[in-house]
Order: sequence, then structure tokens, then C-alpha cells
Amino acid sequence: MVTRTTFDQALKSLQQDILRMGSLVEEAIARAVESLAKQDEAMAQKVIDGDAIIDELELEIDDTCMKLIATQQPMAKDLRRIATGFKIITDLERIADHAVDIAKIAKRIANQPLIKPLIDIPRMAQLAQKMVKEALDAYVREDVDLAHRMAKDDDQVDSLHNQVFRELLVYMMEDPRTITQATYLLFVSRYLERIADHATNIGEGVIYLVTGERKELND
Amino acid sequence: MVTRTTFDQALKSLQQDILRMGSLVEEAIARAVESLAKQDEAMAQKVIDGDAIIDELELEIDDTCMKLIATQQPMAKDLRRIATGFKIITDLERIADHAVDIAKIAKRIANQPLIKPLIDIPRMAQLAQKMVKEALDAYVREDVDLAHRMAKDDDQVDSLHNQVFRELLVYMMEDPRTITQATYLLFVSRYLERIADHATNIGEGVIYLVTGERKELND
Repeated sequence: MVTRTTFDQALKSLQQDILRMGSLVEEAIARAVESLAKQDEAMAQKVIDGDAIIDELELEIDDTCMKLIATQQPMAKDLRRIATGFKIITDLERIADHAVDIAKIAKRIANQPLIKPLIDIPRMAQLAQKMVKEALDAYVREDVDLAHRMAKDDDQVDSLHNQVFRELLVYMMEDPRTITQATYLLFVSRYLERIADHATNIGEGVIYLVTGERKELND
Repeated sequence: MVTRTTFDQALKSLQQDILRMGSLVEEAIARAVESLAKQDEAMAQKVIDGDAIIDELELEIDDTCMKLIATQQPMAKDLRRIATGFKIITDLERIADHAVDIAKIAKRIANQPLIKPLIDIPRMAQLAQKMVKEALDAYVREDVDLAHRMAKDDDQVDSLHNQVFRELLVYMMEDPRTITQATYLLFVSRYLERIADHATNIGEGVIYLVTGERKELND
């Protein structure tokens, strides 16, 4: 017989797993951009190698969600709690993939002088990482206000991305030797912008979970 | 009382909805790249406007999946059928977002001469579109072979992307006036590569649905 306590414990354990996956993903973002800024090839490689653990965790949590649904047959909000978790891990996995994309670029340009010191890109990474953390906190605490506050940072990430984009285009035009690296950095900026979008998706999931309403944050 | 027939009908109707969403998404890819190649701003705008319908459809199907789980309490493979559908629509929505990304670029460069006739990019789009179609067919028919065959095209998309990337870098280096547009085209190529990745994700979902096993296609 399934009791409410059993379900609550299972849910808590699911949330802990999601937070654990979230920490790994946050760390991957931070390390990927640090390896880029410090031109640290070994650190970049660690991010790439670490992705397998995140993928593994996604599958495990996926199975946990399926088992919870099959054995506990949750209804209404309980079902939304699990379904939201099920979607969140897809976003986390995509974020981790982008961290790997960035780490691969870090490896590629580790042995050439940086065309400029990286300032805005690490700033974007910090914001994106904070958004991921807050989005997951909002999920676990079912905190709609936090989801809204978190999503506000997305505008800042977008505006940093536009700034980086324009700046790198100027570099390329002024000195064609910078083109290859500048192109890679453009992609890094775009990946960070996407990471912020995924965090925003998670925030929308939280709002749906709590209110049962679909609402677009930003846009 | 829920009968097997009721469940089968509900499942069939869910699959029809997913296929309908899939058709819209395939059309969005085709039109976005056509609007880019033909510099047709109105067509690009249609892709952008049409995204709201796809988003709406995602939410509807999302709700259908939740209702099916709550009311029919499916087990084992039936639960996997629905959970896979639930994840597929996330991939379809992201694909549609990339079609919008491409359409926005099409609008931006509609009024400037193309730096080169577009050949590889439309070819990538055709392949990506075919992959999406086949991935969804594989889902509905629960056809693991088709999922494998579909994923083979991903290599071709990747190699076209690498080719486009190299070629555009050469353009930029030879003539800095091409830099802005070439950068946009680089992003288009990358979006198409991502679309093919999402189709591959769907294929992996199909394999999980049929076999209960997690298997990475490609890599």
C-alpha cells in the first residue's frame, strides 16, 4: 500500500537527484568558461569527460520519474511535480551539452593568444549559472516569485550577447587574422544565451507546476 | 471504466497530434531556409508568426499526455509510449525555435546581395527535415530499424556543417565585407546541425520505447 509519506519521500529523493544533476551542470558551465578564459586545456577536457556522468544521471532520474508514475499513480499537482522534473532534466542535459560545446572551443583555441581578454563572456556565464541555480531552487521550493526574478536576468544575458556579438564583428573587420577565433567566441556567447533560455524554460515549468497555468517568462 | 480500446484510441489520437505538430515543424524548417535562399522576407515572417501555433500545440499535447497518465494509469510500454511522446514534443518545439532563428536571419539579410548562392545549406535543411519526418514515423510505427537508418543521415549533416564552416571562414578572410553575413550563415548551418541532433534524440526515444534500453545513436 502506497502511503502519502512514501510518496513524499520518493518525491524528495527525486528532487535531491535533480539538484545533484543541477550542481554538476552549474559546475560544468563555470569550468567550461574558466577553461576558455584561462586557456586551460586540461580543465576543458574534464568538462568534456564529465558529461557522461550528467547523461547517466539524466537517464536514472528519467527512470525514477517513470517508476514513480507507474507505482504511485499520482494525480493533479503531484503528477505535475513529476512531469515538471521529467522536463527539467531535459533542459539540464541540453545545458550540459552547451558547456561541452564551450569546452571543445576552449581546447581548440587554448594554444593561440586570445584576441582580447574575456570579460563579458565570464559575466554571462556567471549570470547563466545563477539562473540555473535559482530555477532549480524555485522548482524544489515551488517558488513562483523566484522563478520570475530569475527570468529577469535573461534580459541581461541577451543584452551582453548582443554587445559581444557587435564587438567581435568589429574585431574581425579590423583584423582578418582574428576571424577564426572571433567566430568561436561568437558561438560561445550564443551557447551561454541558450543556457539562460533553458533556465527560463525551467522557470516556466515551475509556474505551471504551482499554478497549473502556462505562462511565458520574458518574450 | 477504462477499456483497452479507449486507451488505444486515446494513444492513436495523441500520435496524430504529434504527427500534426511534426508536419508544421518540418514545414517551418523548409520555409525558413527557402526564405533565406530566395531572400523572401514575407515568407520568413510567416515562419516567425507560425511559431505561436506550434507552441500552442505543444502545450495541448502536453496536457493530453498528463490527462492520459492521470486517467488511464498506463504501465510499462504504454507508459513509455506516452513519456516518449511527452519528450518528443520538447524536441519538436526546439526544432521550431531553430527554424525561427533561421527565419530571423533570413529577414536580416533579405535586402543585401547574398555573398554566395546557397547550395549546402538547403541540402542540410532537406536532410534535417527528412530526419524529423522519419524519426516521427519511427515513433508511431515503433520501428527501431527506421530510427537507426534516420540517425545515419546525421553524419552527413555534420560533415556538410563542417564544410560550410570552413568555406565561410575563407570568404570572411578573403573579403572582410562578407563578415557580417557569413557570420549569420554560420549560425544557420549550426542551427540545422542542431535540428538533426534533435531528430536523433527522437530516434533514441523510439529505441527506448520499443526495447526499454537506452542507446546512443551516433556520437
